[in-house]
Amino acid sequence: MATAHLASWSVNLTYSQLPKDVIDAAIRTFYNWAGCAVGGSNHPTTTTAAKALEPFFGQPAASLLGVGKRSVDAQHAALLNGIASHVHDYDDTHLDTIIHPAGPVASALLAVAEWKGGIPGQDFLLALVCGIETECKVGLAVWPEHYDIGWHITSSTGSIGAAVAVSKLLSLSVEQTAHAIGIASTQIIGLREMFGSDTKSFHSRRAAQSGVLAAVLAQQGYTSSGQALEAKRGWANVVGATKEDVQVNLNRWLGLSAKDSQEQDDFGLAGGQSPGRWETLRNSFKPYPCGIVIHPVIDGCCQLHSEFNRLGLSSESIQQVQVTVHPLVMELTGKTAPRDGLEGKFSFYHGGAIGLLYGKATPDEYEDHIVQDPTVVAIRGRIQGTMDPKLRPDEAKIVLTMNDGVVLEKHVEHAVGSLNVPLDDEFLENKFQNQCAKVLANVDTASNACWNIAEVKDVSEIAKALST
Amino acid sequence: MATAHLASWSVNLTYSQLPKDVIDAAIRTFYNWAGCAVGGSNHPTTTTAAKALEPFFGQPAASLLGVGKRSVDAQHAALLNGIASHVHDYDDTHLDTIIHPAGPVASALLAVAEWKGGIPGQDFLLALVCGIETECKVGLAVWPEHYDIGWHITSSTGSIGAAVAVSKLLSLSVEQTAHAIGIASTQIIGLREMFGSDTKSFHSRRAAQSGVLAAVLAQQGYTSSGQALEAKRGWANVVGATKEDVQVNLNRWLGLSAKDSQEQDDFGLAGGQSPGRWETLRNSFKPYPCGIVIHPVIDGCCQLHSEFNRLGLSSESIQQVQVTVHPLVMELTGKTAPRDGLEGKFSFYHGGAIGLLYGKATPDEYEDHIVQDPTVVAIRGRIQGTMDPKLRPDEAKIVLTMNDGVVLEKHVEHAVGSLNVPLDDEFLENKFQNQCAKVLANVDTASNACWNIAEVKDVSEIAKALST
Repeated sequence: MATAHLASWSVNLTYSQLPKDVIDAAIRTFYNWAGCAVGGSNHPTTTTAAKALEPFFGQPAASLLGVGKRSVDAQHAALLNGIASHVHDYDDTHLDTIIHPAGPVASALLAVAEWKGGIPGQDFLLALVCGIETECKVGLAVWPEHYDIGWHITSSTGSIGAAVAVSKLLSLSVEQTAHAIGIASTQIIGLREMFGSDTKSFHSRRAAQSGVLAAVLAQQGYTSSGQALEAKRGWANVVGATKEDVQVNLNRWLGLSAKDSQEQDDFGLAGGQSPGRWETLRNSFKPYPCGIVIHPVIDGCCQLHSEFNRLGLSSESIQQVQVTVHPLVMELTGKTAPRDGLEGKFSFYHGGAIGLLYGKATPDEYEDHIVQDPTVVAIRGRIQGTMDPKLRPDEAKIVLTMNDGVVLEKHVEHAVGSLNVPLDDEFLENKFQNQCAKVLANVDTASNACWNIAEVKDVSEIAKALST
Repeated sequence: MATAHLASWSVNLTYSQLPKDVIDAAIRTFYNWAGCAVGGSNHPTTTTAAKALEPFFGQPAASLLGVGKRSVDAQHAALLNGIASHVHDYDDTHLDTIIHPAGPVASALLAVAEWKGGIPGQDFLLALVCGIETECKVGLAVWPEHYDIGWHITSSTGSIGAAVAVSKLLSLSVEQTAHAIGIASTQIIGLREMFGSDTKSFHSRRAAQSGVLAAVLAQQGYTSSGQALEAKRGWANVVGATKEDVQVNLNRWLGLSAKDSQEQDDFGLAGGQSPGRWETLRNSFKPYPCGIVIHPVIDGCCQLHSEFNRLGLSSESIQQVQVTVHPLVMELTGKTAPRDGLEGKFSFYHGGAIGLLYGKATPDEYEDHIVQDPTVVAIRGRIQGTMDPKLRPDEAKIVLTMNDGVVLEKHVEHAVGSLNVPLDDEFLENKFQNQCAKVLANVDTASNACWNIAEVKDVSEIAKALST
């Protein structure tokens, strides 16, 4: 029932049923993803994968974004653009599940859209919403136990999201879409054990590729189970870890139970007659390319940077920095002496130091040479971390003492980028420009093309703008 | 430790360390796989997948076996030849885990060997053994809970086996092989819910492809976890379902624990100084293209066919057939009125009927038109099934009453194809010939090429013989 319901919902959803704010959120999601994919295109994790896979590249059909400047088959474009979009840990986050929704879905969709040609931007956005809603809803059904036992939830739900999205773009029938869900759900990608290695970026992007594969196989009549999600030995039970509740949860988040009960809180799929809830609206964008729990610290330190500058002071007079965070922040990101850029992403000490020194935290400030820079190391050494379980994980308190006795304090209740303080379009634009400046010849053209996706007649134009 | 140990074992194993019977078993495994891959090449499940994937085919590098008569990139060759090798449910079975070992491993290896060129047959066989031992050992570590909760164990272990095999063929280092194990183990393919659909054949063959991908990425320096199998959130814990024992089991089957204790029953990896146990020797081959629990019934009915013929009687005089089987056989294969070939594979009534009528059960007897043939339907209708929990699942008792009062009885204690009554080379040869006769122009050339793999200087020659 769940699988058929999801397939039917996706097939029947129309662009006119999307509320204005959902369309805006989808555009912002795509825009943020595009900048990340271009910005990560010259990262060694991306280029190593491209070199290894080159012998398998098929006929040119879809662009490798950014530095690639070449066209490959749509499956490899989905995989490689997807890896690029995640390598800086800078992509979008559905905070309720910590799924990064765009990676699997947008990577799959842009590659297929360019391959097929003539896909209007509105069809693309509609398919994007179908995919994002799918991953997040099935993710919610198994959250948090699924993540706790070790699945990388972005990729383990991502192949299903990508399959639904590509099925929508290819106008598959309800039955074909259900088979695509089945083919995708039997390819479960991503163990958390791989975090910290190249393979993390590979996860959700292999999911993108699996989603493409699922949809094109189903289109040709390749069969699967019609009950892939809900069956006794189907996806939710096998990876859900909560055997008793998982069916109830699945029905709840897909909106199946609400129909039988009088529940007012309908968390199910939205659109058409259903009140539901749009997960696309709950997607957030990272202001800084690192683990989200560090963001309040960086946020506060960037603000303090502006404040002591206004007072005519410089970072050289920093004497001591007292940073108080939730214990989880310390557990996940408590590295006091990171050795390279990747380790820097797991250090709130480094995040605080670059905020105080530069007033910003972009991929540039996570380059190895910055993490190893003596000035940065010195400031990191003046930061003292303290835990306080009364704080929330997305909260931080910072007390900055300068040499001349000036004391500045900052309490960040919610970091910028959270649902309470969403990134505005200007910040998104700056982030995009910063990521694309070193890669694309004409960043403004690319940026405008992405912002205007809802008016574009052929999405291929955008792919071209992102790869020249 | 487990991951590093496995990688080190594989890298250090030499052909001269393989006992003669292990080499023979590996050749028989390859031979059986090759016949199945050719025989399944024109099955709709294979041709549908090929049609869907054609837009992604890369430069010609590896042959599509059998009717394909075309060369594609090695990843697609691994996937499509793998699908073909399983569509008739006719491939090999490691009975202790019901893994079908050759599918993922041989499909990956032959494609890569042809792509690389110049790979001697002995190197190929050594890599094949490394892959088979890997899948079966890690499968044993999580068996049977892993299968019970819903994983298709052939594919969920197959990507790891294929990764180790291809790593061996490409002469990767211990460290690279460990990374390949990691990249493969994070792609967990196969839910049992898909059994009965096209997607079952897709499973272990996507695993073959994932194994190829893992090895070529690791070769380029792509990193993963070095503790992919044993880590807290690594493969064995996440998919093992028996949280307490899984580490102990993993160590036991990889031969890590035996070193510390005085255990005489060493089930670990064999070769070199280790006594161990070769899982390759425990691989079995199906005489009939259907679920293994039906084999004793077919076996007995084929023998009865010969017996009543010897008595000058024909199948027209069959009055009644009493078939007694273990309850599991009834549960899994109790379809009394199968409607097509696929359903026929899940009916011991059909298996018994074709044994009595034709004295054989090859893919021909599972064609839709045979399953629907009135003569076959009539014989099926005269078979009465009874359960007896005192029988083993691989045992059957048959009482055949002919119209003229003759009663023939047959008690099959172990079916042909089991470890107790292994298929001899003549049966394997007949099976190969039968599968290839409609597909290849020169079956004998292909057959000889496969039997002589240990003497071949370049395995590409065999791939060519299997595709012309």
